[in-house]
Amino acid sequence: MNIQFSDRTGAIKASEIRELLKLTERPEVISFAGGLPAPELFPKEEIARISKKVFQEEGDIALQYSSTDGYTPLRKKIAGDIMSQANVNVTEDNIMMINGSQQGLEFSAKLFVNEGDVILCESPSYLGAINAFMVYRPNFVEIPTDDDGMIIEELEKALKTTDKVKMIYTIPDFQNPSGKTMPVSRRKRIAELAKEYNVPVIEDSPYGDLIFEGKRLPSIMSFDKDGYVIYLGTFSKIFCPGFRLGWVCAKPEIIRKYILIKQGADLQSSTVSQLITYRFLEENDIQKHIEKIVSVYRKRRDVMLKSIETYFPKEVKYTRPKGGLFAWVELKENLNARDIFKEAIEQNVAFVPGGSFFPNGGHENYFRLNYSTMPEDKIEEGIKRLGNLLKKYY
Amino acid sequence: MNIQFSDRTGAIKASEIRELLKLTERPEVISFAGGLPAPELFPKEEIARISKKVFQEEGDIALQYSSTDGYTPLRKKIAGDIMSQANVNVTEDNIMMINGSQQGLEFSAKLFVNEGDVILCESPSYLGAINAFMVYRPNFVEIPTDDDGMIIEELEKALKTTDKVKMIYTIPDFQNPSGKTMPVSRRKRIAELAKEYNVPVIEDSPYGDLIFEGKRLPSIMSFDKDGYVIYLGTFSKIFCPGFRLGWVCAKPEIIRKYILIKQGADLQSSTVSQLITYRFLEENDIQKHIEKIVSVYRKRRDVMLKSIETYFPKEVKYTRPKGGLFAWVELKENLNARDIFKEAIEQNVAFVPGGSFFPNGGHENYFRLNYSTMPEDKIEEGIKRLGNLLKKYY
Repeated sequence: MNIQFSDRTGAIKASEIRELLKLTERPEVISFAGGLPAPELFPKEEIARISKKVFQEEGDIALQYSSTDGYTPLRKKIAGDIMSQANVNVTEDNIMMINGSQQGLEFSAKLFVNEGDVILCESPSYLGAINAFMVYRPNFVEIPTDDDGMIIEELEKALKTTDKVKMIYTIPDFQNPSGKTMPVSRRKRIAELAKEYNVPVIEDSPYGDLIFEGKRLPSIMSFDKDGYVIYLGTFSKIFCPGFRLGWVCAKPEIIRKYILIKQGADLQSSTVSQLITYRFLEENDIQKHIEKIVSVYRKRRDVMLKSIETYFPKEVKYTRPKGGLFAWVELKENLNARDIFKEAIEQNVAFVPGGSFFPNGGHENYFRLNYSTMPEDKIEEGIKRLGNLLKKYY
Repeated sequence: MNIQFSDRTGAIKASEIRELLKLTERPEVISFAGGLPAPELFPKEEIARISKKVFQEEGDIALQYSSTDGYTPLRKKIAGDIMSQANVNVTEDNIMMINGSQQGLEFSAKLFVNEGDVILCESPSYLGAINAFMVYRPNFVEIPTDDDGMIIEELEKALKTTDKVKMIYTIPDFQNPSGKTMPVSRRKRIAELAKEYNVPVIEDSPYGDLIFEGKRLPSIMSFDKDGYVIYLGTFSKIFCPGFRLGWVCAKPEIIRKYILIKQGADLQSSTVSQLITYRFLEENDIQKHIEKIVSVYRKRRDVMLKSIETYFPKEVKYTRPKGGLFAWVELKENLNARDIFKEAIEQNVAFVPGGSFFPNGGHENYFRLNYSTMPEDKIEEGIKRLGNLLKKYY
């Protein structure tokens, strides 16, 4: 067989996380590798009850094709109850349903990026986004970050000095992989820069509601009067990822472009997922459910940070996330986290080496730790094993 | 706002069908426009029972992230019970789950087609495929068809005389929009030509199981020893489209490429949809369910063909499908089905004008009729109204 693939196929790499997840599936592994929600928090009985009702009472709708933009009552609910949490005031005309925010990432690159165009992103950035964008063969310019995320002066410099910038990609809340959060002043400034330079901002906010300390900050979109910001939301972290349900929120004229892309890509997201999710939101208080999730994750974060303090060599640097799912560890420059991963997996502990979070490579001395999936005792035990392993190098 | 879109965005058009469906949603419209399965045949009670059980007993799995290729027991079942109906002998390593076969179409163009490459397809072809492919800006070469579908001599001529052919796209069973079926000899020859010219064949078979007369013909893939044929299947027509579940069947080395594309595109198809569909297949006889669907659609086709015979002007040509969802009508060359659509919708009857099924335009004197959605009395009434309308022009 000698089939020719498209040029873009060469740009597509396997996601390291998803490959690693296979290694970490053995039950004896203490895995800090994934970004999985804790399954014990899924409201299984309530979903069982609702799904039965949906199929019995609305089965003709739930099981049939539906419109590309999505189920209108659900879009209304997202526009009203959920986007208002991000300080955004919109209607269902601003919302299109997608298969998790990952699909919104791929659609965004398809919509805005020609081969050789530039995407500005945080350094490091979410590797799933890097993979989704890579298919369209952009150049990535990584914007340096400090404890408050993307450094605005660096972003502005890049906008000023770089040709063909077509997209700014950012995760302002509890960033993946770093756990960092961007303060209000920076959010406001990004919205201004988007307008000044006519560049759309993809604001990816899967973790915005998972807040351990303080209040939710207004989204970048909340400072945008002109439609430059496109917001991606998802039910994967506040409800259940198995439904594969997220949304794009943008100006209606931009949403219409996303709808055309969605039509060609897969017609529509699952009607079944949309109706069950809608009914759940109607009959339950999602904010209460989020509080429950947050209280569990907060404790797990606390245990992880305390264990790192106790067991890691003092010289190792790490972030102290105030929400979300991840902490980010920086080793001495001469250490390679991929090598340490191999040793760790022999000890039945897993994490994600940090190199893949940098689209232009390098930075192999970082790794990402997830604390949402493992129970507290395992978190302590896993960090202890990792710490012992790291001590050899310090 | 002055955001720049990618060049490919200009190539994306709204699907005429989905725009028309909006016009035809009024309950008083007798619609032959969609390709919707009859919702009264959805096994609602059984799905209600199964979904409750799945969430209660396997909720931790059903509601969680899962692997990109799909739920292994379901892939096994498709490889065994379902692909064998198409005379194909494969294992789960040949199967990846997708969001309906539409997603497989988009992925295929992404995988094989650079800008300016050539796709060979039937004339006419499925407009959803044309739209999915269009994003990658190919040139379409339409292969003329006769009553048996794609004419092989014309296909061979095109392969011989055209540069940069990267894909042959075909719907051999009860084609959309024509309802035509390709005989065994042609299927065999397409598999041979694919190998001879090193060109992959996308065999799209959403209607293969909906057989009104005779037996299912072996798929093109069944004649392919070398991995040139990629088969797209779907549960939308034999079960329920609301789950958005289909599959790609191909050689494992090709499936691995599709998995990489799927990772970037949306990580995975809905775990919820996959587990419910798997349980349904485990606890029910899908072939029995298909027989039930077929017996209803067969009667509706009979009523439609008989009504056309009774009410249409004798000069109007039309196909007599032996399965699937569609019949295809050819008017005098000087008539434009888009104009007639406007008159028809005023009479509360809808169909899809045929022009959009030809990627290079022209052929406005055709239209497509669907007979799966409307009950028999409405089919007769709708065709009668259409016939009266057409009589003005003959």
